Amino acid sequence: MSQVLKVSSVSEPSAAAGAIANGIRECGTAEIQVIGPRAVNQAVKAIAIARGYLAASGLDVYCVPAFASIRIGADDEEKTAIQFVVRTRHGLRGSKWSGKTF
Amino acid sequence: MSQVLKVSSVSEPSAAAGAIANGIRECGTAEIQVIGPRAVNQAVKAIAIARGYLAASGLDVYCVPAFASIRIGADDEEKTAIQFVVRTRHGLRGSKWSGKTF
Repeated sequence: MSQVLKVSSVSEPSAAAGAIANGIRECGTAEIQVIGPRAVNQAVKAIAIARGYLAASGLDVYCVPAFASIRIGADDEEKTAIQFVVRTRHGLRGSKWSGKTF
Repeated sequence: MSQVLKVSSVSEPSAAAGAIANGIRECGTAEIQVIGPRAVNQAVKAIAIARGYLAASGLDVYCVPAFASIRIGADDEEKTAIQFVVRTRHGLRGSKWSGKTF
């Protein structure tokens, strides 16, 4: 089970792509959570870049977007996030992937 | 072969979701092209909503994002678009899908 990768509006897509590629290589899956249009955009770019990284290893990835309701901040505010589950058609079994926040 | 669905920053996600669901039902695939962060966000929301529509019919969809270089406008300006190919794991064979711009 991989940790959730949080991508923000100021995340560097290529750095997030590296984390996605690591998650795929180690767990066969990566989960990304974003809030807001610009963060969604950065996450999509990161997934597109990660596809290129992984294609070089013969791995073909796809993603499944879904809405997720999360609570954040001191006042426990409820927000609607977008969650992307990235998977490969050639799922790998591996060790736990230690996620990172960008 | 389905036509390309163009989603913009002012597209209504539920309407675009209906077009995606139609494309999937008729061709087993839908292609979406967007330019700009807000359009990417609307497209991702539309795909997430379409997943809900199609899940009711027992269809499970996923998407593959990629960069695409396109030329638009009178001066043939080159822009980087994001292209989403939406597919189902239960690909259907059907008639041509007549795409729509939202």
